[in-house]
Amino acid sequence: METQTISAAFYRGDKSFAVEQTTVNPPMANEVAIRIAFCGICGTDMHVYHRNMDARVGHNRILGHEMSGIVDAVGPGVDRITAGQKAVVRPLDHCGDCPACHAGHKHICHKLKFLGLDTDGAMQEIWNVPAHTVHILPDDIRMDHAALIEPLAVACHDVRLSELKTNEDVLVIGGGPIGVLVAMVAREAGGNVIISEVNENRIAIAKKLGFDTINPAKSDLPAQVNARTDNKGADVVFEVSGTQPGVDAMTACAATKARIVMVAIHAQKPNIDLFQFFWRELQLIGARVYEAEDYEKAISLIAGGAIEADTIITDVSPLSDIQGAFESLDASPTALKSLVQVGELS
Amino acid sequence: METQTISAAFYRGDKSFAVEQTTVNPPMANEVAIRIAFCGICGTDMHVYHRNMDARVGHNRILGHEMSGIVDAVGPGVDRITAGQKAVVRPLDHCGDCPACHAGHKHICHKLKFLGLDTDGAMQEIWNVPAHTVHILPDDIRMDHAALIEPLAVACHDVRLSELKTNEDVLVIGGGPIGVLVAMVAREAGGNVIISEVNENRIAIAKKLGFDTINPAKSDLPAQVNARTDNKGADVVFEVSGTQPGVDAMTACAATKARIVMVAIHAQKPNIDLFQFFWRELQLIGARVYEAEDYEKAISLIAGGAIEADTIITDVSPLSDIQGAFESLDASPTALKSLVQVGELS
Repeated sequence: METQTISAAFYRGDKSFAVEQTTVNPPMANEVAIRIAFCGICGTDMHVYHRNMDARVGHNRILGHEMSGIVDAVGPGVDRITAGQKAVVRPLDHCGDCPACHAGHKHICHKLKFLGLDTDGAMQEIWNVPAHTVHILPDDIRMDHAALIEPLAVACHDVRLSELKTNEDVLVIGGGPIGVLVAMVAREAGGNVIISEVNENRIAIAKKLGFDTINPAKSDLPAQVNARTDNKGADVVFEVSGTQPGVDAMTACAATKARIVMVAIHAQKPNIDLFQFFWRELQLIGARVYEAEDYEKAISLIAGGAIEADTIITDVSPLSDIQGAFESLDASPTALKSLVQVGELS
Repeated sequence: METQTISAAFYRGDKSFAVEQTTVNPPMANEVAIRIAFCGICGTDMHVYHRNMDARVGHNRILGHEMSGIVDAVGPGVDRITAGQKAVVRPLDHCGDCPACHAGHKHICHKLKFLGLDTDGAMQEIWNVPAHTVHILPDDIRMDHAALIEPLAVACHDVRLSELKTNEDVLVIGGGPIGVLVAMVAREAGGNVIISEVNENRIAIAKKLGFDTINPAKSDLPAQVNARTDNKGADVVFEVSGTQPGVDAMTACAATKARIVMVAIHAQKPNIDLFQFFWRELQLIGARVYEAEDYEKAISLIAGGAIEADTIITDVSPLSDIQGAFESLDASPTALKSLVQVGELS
């Protein structure tokens, strides 16, 4: 096998991408080369676009980790994967030798490399990745839908850690892409789901997906949650907003003994009503990325049609227009998930 | 049976108690009359003394719930308890008809009555209580030691909810009476326990009890915890300090996937490093009072001599000098647990 010439999108800093020809080597030992079909734009990619992560990614980085593709070739030592198989990548490379790895928590390894941020990602026609990161997909899965597996796996991880049981009342605070996916997985797990969201466009999408919604800017959120739950409150709360009002709501809307899952990234240290944690024996559960079983769950949900993927995917752009895709997503009040079509694969 | 004349200590407001003769009726249906031996002074009682709970307790209240005693008589309908048995009271009376009670969480009933605050307590020679609150003790238990069962049950509840496993590293933030009891129960459960405390007198008691201690006012607490845990941090953290520095330390000293038990009452809403909850998948577990199994565990620990009761009990005063007992405890830099001897029972 030989070096191939491919198209790739390089982040050049300052909200700009350059799509250029580059070369890719054949996969090395224990690597898999994947021909990329689609790659979604993650909120983290948008943070990069907004210059917030330049120190981490530099100005010569190929972004992208919410991908789908087809195995192009496998390197020496890779037995369980063959060319032609549909695949997604769980973009986490752990060190194997830190306290988290030793304790079996590889997904939150202290020296975790996130593929597509700390290494080059999927916004290129062929992507070489460690074989241990590859999940094989059913042959009949749609490649555009499969690009939702990575963010859906986040939602599967969040819901799994919540230990949600059938018929429990669920409040999702924040109805963006991850919030909506969390809501879908929670509904599929048997929860009665309410979404709290202030953006009317996102409220409209949530309603289209069949969710009960509350706009906390327009009505009293705890009172509305109580009215829907026999004055009990939500058994499970997902804080996906990353805001102080969201943090205030997570305790105010929680039932006695509720589990509150911290999905959002809070860069500031918000004020938290700790008294309520004591008084009502609340639990706060931090949740980050996913583990292998969350990926398998997400694959089965997408393959089984349990997720309304066509409603979530609001835009698709070619790789050649990645610049426009980021600009549109940044400006759009109605976009939910925007995909980049990297290759013509189906 | 007839009405009896007894001595009782009434809280009269403004840091004052009056020990007076009063009458007590025979136990009614499903009640048990207990002749009180000892009653400890709880931090909550000290809050009352400091005028912080006048609205709740009034100025004609008999305080006290950390008690030991002997059953004096039982009312109609009480079969499992007989006069002469040693007993303690789990001072929680639930409503039976709120969302918490319906979900089986009676100990955090939304309308919980706490005996000795919302009703009269054990600082009187005979105390009538609902039969369902009574736990029977082994005959050979020491009555002064048995007065530690109630606060020890708090510690048993905290440690049970932490799901502490053998050989896990434990940090207890705050070495007051509850902190020391939590540390003892955690050690008995197999934990490697460190106590963080700023008061040198309390540090001396903790050391006397065999605990490793760190004074965070004198050294870098997270660095010291890391040095003792192979740079891993504490697997289980108990926040018992009720302070912002304690809340800062609880995340800074926690291992990946650590469980942090919120024991303290935080009247303010502190700033919390939520990012760490996300990044390292920490858990925060609210814990309040106790359930029946925690009482049974506490009884077995005291009866089995697993708790250094004589070191924890630093003062014993007669009921007639309850005023002096509160004043001494309030002023003492070295006191840990102060008992009031209500009756001459052993």
